[in-house]
Amino acid sequence: MNDKRTTSPRRRRVLSGLGAASLATVLLPRARAAVAPLPVEPWSQQPGEPGLWHPYGLPSDFEKDVVRRISRPPAMPGATSTLTPLGDLFGAITPNGLVYERHHGGVPLIDPAQHRFVIHGLVKQAREFTLDDLMRFPSVSRVHFLECSGNTASEWKGPSGLPVQMTHGLLSCCEWTGVPLSTVLDEVGVAPEAKWFLAEGSDAAAMTRSIPLAKGLDDALLVYAQNGEHLRPENGYPLRLLLPGFEGNTNIKWLRRIKLTAEPFMTREETSKYTDLQADGLARQFVFEMDAKSVITRPSAGQHLGGPGFYPVSGLAWSGRGCITRVEVSMDGGKTWRDATLQGPVQSKAATRFEAGWHWDGAPADLQSRATDETGYVQPTRDALVAARGLNSYYHYNGIQNWQVAANGEIRNA
Amino acid sequence: MNDKRTTSPRRRRVLSGLGAASLATVLLPRARAAVAPLPVEPWSQQPGEPGLWHPYGLPSDFEKDVVRRISRPPAMPGATSTLTPLGDLFGAITPNGLVYERHHGGVPLIDPAQHRFVIHGLVKQAREFTLDDLMRFPSVSRVHFLECSGNTASEWKGPSGLPVQMTHGLLSCCEWTGVPLSTVLDEVGVAPEAKWFLAEGSDAAAMTRSIPLAKGLDDALLVYAQNGEHLRPENGYPLRLLLPGFEGNTNIKWLRRIKLTAEPFMTREETSKYTDLQADGLARQFVFEMDAKSVITRPSAGQHLGGPGFYPVSGLAWSGRGCITRVEVSMDGGKTWRDATLQGPVQSKAATRFEAGWHWDGAPADLQSRATDETGYVQPTRDALVAARGLNSYYHYNGIQNWQVAANGEIRNA
Repeated sequence: MNDKRTTSPRRRRVLSGLGAASLATVLLPRARAAVAPLPVEPWSQQPGEPGLWHPYGLPSDFEKDVVRRISRPPAMPGATSTLTPLGDLFGAITPNGLVYERHHGGVPLIDPAQHRFVIHGLVKQAREFTLDDLMRFPSVSRVHFLECSGNTASEWKGPSGLPVQMTHGLLSCCEWTGVPLSTVLDEVGVAPEAKWFLAEGSDAAAMTRSIPLAKGLDDALLVYAQNGEHLRPENGYPLRLLLPGFEGNTNIKWLRRIKLTAEPFMTREETSKYTDLQADGLARQFVFEMDAKSVITRPSAGQHLGGPGFYPVSGLAWSGRGCITRVEVSMDGGKTWRDATLQGPVQSKAATRFEAGWHWDGAPADLQSRATDETGYVQPTRDALVAARGLNSYYHYNGIQNWQVAANGEIRNA
Repeated sequence: MNDKRTTSPRRRRVLSGLGAASLATVLLPRARAAVAPLPVEPWSQQPGEPGLWHPYGLPSDFEKDVVRRISRPPAMPGATSTLTPLGDLFGAITPNGLVYERHHGGVPLIDPAQHRFVIHGLVKQAREFTLDDLMRFPSVSRVHFLECSGNTASEWKGPSGLPVQMTHGLLSCCEWTGVPLSTVLDEVGVAPEAKWFLAEGSDAAAMTRSIPLAKGLDDALLVYAQNGEHLRPENGYPLRLLLPGFEGNTNIKWLRRIKLTAEPFMTREETSKYTDLQADGLARQFVFEMDAKSVITRPSAGQHLGGPGFYPVSGLAWSGRGCITRVEVSMDGGKTWRDATLQGPVQSKAATRFEAGWHWDGAPADLQSRATDETGYVQPTRDALVAARGLNSYYHYNGIQNWQVAANGEIRNA
């Protein structure tokens, strides 16, 4: 789609030779009638790389630009974000090498044999666990998205001009494996007065958040694996908290401690940070669930349409409150909408791939998507979001995203 | 589980201090009562690695032994198999870096801009496509297993003594994204006399297989992405055929050509190879669907149980004919069976994680699993399989696997 070969003389010559009759389905404006045998390419003429070329495999060198990217230089060492290249990805799963990162004190390199995890506070019997201990519990594997609540903060004040990796790339979706926190809480015994818990990471930032105990007894997981293998270092190896649907920051990585309490702790990360200052000067605090949101990833800003014809319009939708039930797309900036197809099985609090076919006539267009979740919540326009929350907020932006297609096929965030 | 620390003096001292009353659920025979604050580990005392440490991330160095392995030296350059480390994996998804490989002429390194794909033969209009052309079609993403039909051939003549990576590791499961082949066949127009198609790879082996056209019109996919990103070189980059449930060899990698025909071609790979010689001297040919099969991956041969107590017994089950509907486990070598829990959503022709809790009393045990699929087919014992097929076959072994647990916790394939 962002391939300039579509303007090559050969392509234009071939295209002009195809009559309308051969394009009945309008699916293949660029396909060529095969008239001669394929050349035998050099890579067919000699043995390729041996098996076990890479005992742990890597992408093709031709995909070397499909990498996580940094949005801005870190304010201090280790306080960085890297973003998932959503515009180059497919399906719902994010490969582990491209899962977004948000670190407040860098990535600790932890020896799993040395790592310990403690549950204490308002419990009947405080306990310390090794990773092996936790792997002795019954396990579950579930697909869930993770989204930093700072994702798309660039768009609060209007279109930023950035591509989708930079606007929405603090979003990833993996199959996570671990122990339900509820199982371990059963084991230690919850005291009746416990209503919250503090989760603490063993990174240099000692990241700490207060979480309602109800979430811990619901679908919270102590996770040791993602997409089939042990957690990656930057995603919390060897142990992290996963709170499906909650803002990314609460999913404490490198988890060392959970302390049950009667009240929240009011840590830095839930007072000075990760709160939403409203127009009236009051702040929303403990905004855990990520509201329903969607974005078209292809075609999107920085990509290029090779000419009029059929395009699959594809993207991701997700909600912190359950399943995505509907995604609509608009090609005219929100005037008219139609339903996209949802890639099944649609899973709760998981990224859901959507796609809708579009016959581009070559005129300027504005592509948008709008998600609805199982609670009936509908993703708002930016105007509606600003009217409700004002412009002092940094976190929890989930407005409808517009991609502006020009007549020459260029696409901008405008 | 394969951790020798369970025999450390400290661990034994702590265990002996825990009374039976604190182990009511029997889930935590090894957990220690927390008596002192956790030490502040070195990695908590200084900033960790910066973000964008790896733009494309890699596993922890502590997991450096979780890699694909080769079963035997290749007979000729590029004719190799590497196996997925199933005993170290979780959930259903295989991470791309660990997806098994089977090459007949090595791994070609293909420039996607140069790659061409042709459909010709018994079609109304032969056509040539670039990768960009194919990405213009409506796409789907589906989770499916891939299994080499030579997987587990080591067990035909009895227990091989090998660990699960070497017995069952020619099995992986990914989310695949691509174009339904039926869509592209609609576009080129299928001639009425077409009943088969030849699929040809652009590797040096020019891998070719004849496939019934009915499969091409059913759920076959022209795949360009796996687990969210473009295919890996060793898995067919930039384009492969995916025939859900069919033996791995038919899922032609580096796909360059599909030719529609009235009859199969009788290529080397479906005559001298990938046929099953029976006891009576006749061969089964064109055995496409992989029969239902399962294996316990943890605990499994080469792993070690740290002592009596609770263990989750976990593994994978899959069928080339649809959904897995039931997995039973036996701890007494098949005398008695009970149902394992299936990890949902169970998907058709996809690996399904199962798990069953087991209280090991410390006596010798024989762990087995048995899969049933939606057709009612039940995975056979090795004896039943040999009675039906004899011992001349190499491919399509799907017998029940036994892992023998000794009183000292060692586990063998015996």
